[in-house]
Amino acid sequence: MSSAQPSGNDAGHGDGDLASRLAQTAGEIEALLDALLGDAAQDGEIARPARLLAAMRHGSLGGGKRLRPFLTVETARLFGVAPAQALRAGAAVELVHCYSLVHDDLPAMDDDDTRRGRPTVHKAYDEGTAILAGDTLLTFAFEVLADPATHSSGDVRAALVLLLARASGLGGMAGGQMLDLAAEGRFGAGAAEKLSEVEIRRLQAMKTGALLAASVEIGAVLGGASAGQRTALAAYGRALGAAFQVADDILDVEASPEQLGKATAKDQDKGKATLVSALGLDAAKRERDRLSAEAVAALAGFGAEADVLRAAARFAAERTN
Amino acid sequence: MSSAQPSGNDAGHGDGDLASRLAQTAGEIEALLDALLGDAAQDGEIARPARLLAAMRHGSLGGGKRLRPFLTVETARLFGVAPAQALRAGAAVELVHCYSLVHDDLPAMDDDDTRRGRPTVHKAYDEGTAILAGDTLLTFAFEVLADPATHSSGDVRAALVLLLARASGLGGMAGGQMLDLAAEGRFGAGAAEKLSEVEIRRLQAMKTGALLAASVEIGAVLGGASAGQRTALAAYGRALGAAFQVADDILDVEASPEQLGKATAKDQDKGKATLVSALGLDAAKRERDRLSAEAVAALAGFGAEADVLRAAARFAAERTN
Repeated sequence: MSSAQPSGNDAGHGDGDLASRLAQTAGEIEALLDALLGDAAQDGEIARPARLLAAMRHGSLGGGKRLRPFLTVETARLFGVAPAQALRAGAAVELVHCYSLVHDDLPAMDDDDTRRGRPTVHKAYDEGTAILAGDTLLTFAFEVLADPATHSSGDVRAALVLLLARASGLGGMAGGQMLDLAAEGRFGAGAAEKLSEVEIRRLQAMKTGALLAASVEIGAVLGGASAGQRTALAAYGRALGAAFQVADDILDVEASPEQLGKATAKDQDKGKATLVSALGLDAAKRERDRLSAEAVAALAGFGAEADVLRAAARFAAERTN
Repeated sequence: MSSAQPSGNDAGHGDGDLASRLAQTAGEIEALLDALLGDAAQDGEIARPARLLAAMRHGSLGGGKRLRPFLTVETARLFGVAPAQALRAGAAVELVHCYSLVHDDLPAMDDDDTRRGRPTVHKAYDEGTAILAGDTLLTFAFEVLADPATHSSGDVRAALVLLLARASGLGGMAGGQMLDLAAEGRFGAGAAEKLSEVEIRRLQAMKTGALLAASVEIGAVLGGASAGQRTALAAYGRALGAAFQVADDILDVEASPEQLGKATAKDQDKGKATLVSALGLDAAKRERDRLSAEAVAALAGFGAEADVLRAAARFAAERTN
């Protein structure tokens, strides 16, 4: 992915090849984040602290599948949104994703030393800097969305901010991380809590699903989708998000650390509640495939122009890293 | 302050008494934050994690002068903005202020055990919960601003988001905190760095001044201020912010822990760079008073309706806690 070259505004129309589309968007997002985080250095009289900017760049540049901006860009493409605007909105979603990784890796949270084969931000810098880097990546996401360059309509920009904030906050991603820490037995008796299947699904819908679904919905809002289209796309995003998370749980059991660029079997070691532990490996795989098919089915109202999104739902289930 | 009763939409028009206006806005902000953080509990199918909500409430309710929302409300009043809208915008600014306190108090940052005479969030809960509580308070600030209840115009709402994000991020509050940690000698040789007066002023303009100035500017944008009015009010906000910070540094030397509800002489103990250490106590007091007068002078284009803002600039310099 890191070898993909940015290609300006040409987002590869008509190319049904998921892998090349993913690589292209990843390259474009990398270039845009690089430019956005570089541009801030030109802000004039107020000096920007170099250490904090470097930590923000460490936490957001240099890799990842960029699946969330890909979903934003491909959904926006259904409605003919200008690629430059879709990429900005996708970059904002990715900034939120990156902030969450920086904070989740902290010693007080999941305590991870490596991420994508590199030291995590608090390892490369220090805990205080990592906390601030996460904070500023999150803050910057809203700055990018609210900037007129993202869309000419203030109503659309405000709607994007509202959507992203709701998906990321107490009722979404951060709330899901809290439930996850609690399920590990961090508070109270100290023993991992045995969550029901329903509770695990709710936790995952918040922790991972909400932001993935928002990635899709943001593309729909950018494109002025009808209420019906937006509902269908939101259902697609939720099912894809759930499939993605079960696939992640399965990879934690089946993949090697080299494949993932991070430690595996961590979930098991921590007694973490996953659908693999709740349902067993075989049933979890069937559930993953069912959710992937559900995501594809949600796109029934769209034609061949949504084939890349359909392929993305299958990819979310079948990926090997 | 905590005994002040919220009084709905009646924001005390025509009352020039700063203390009663401050108390009234503080009560209204407390009630609004309580309602906003309570409302989220009604969001329907997605459960909100009770521990995280409790930590958010611990970090945002129950005190503080609420100076920032006061500035937003009083500036908005100059332009006849509906109090309910001004209070929502002020609550968003206060949420950012509260998030910054929760994170700054963490062991990896300033390592404070008490705040306003109560345990800090990581002491009352734990570090992971405190990190997430700060994250969600920050995220919620943008949700509140982007909500149509804050203003009917999407352009205005997006402008408010942009303003608050810029004041809070890399070039503003969080960047200032990074410079502050660096000046304490956290990174590198370990010895506190001797900052020049110019560097101290820049650090403080970012760490404290940017959000105080934004509090004022947000009121101006809500009210549809002209470019000239907005420039004057921004200058007022910056000077008030600088006066406020010098006053804070002076209080750290002169006040008792009981007065402040937190430890004092911490700056000196840490060898922290302040204008008191750079200029000496007497010169710092003269500078505080000069900045306060500069803030008042910036309001020359406004009439008696800005008297409360003028009084606030004097209060920022003369406060005893």
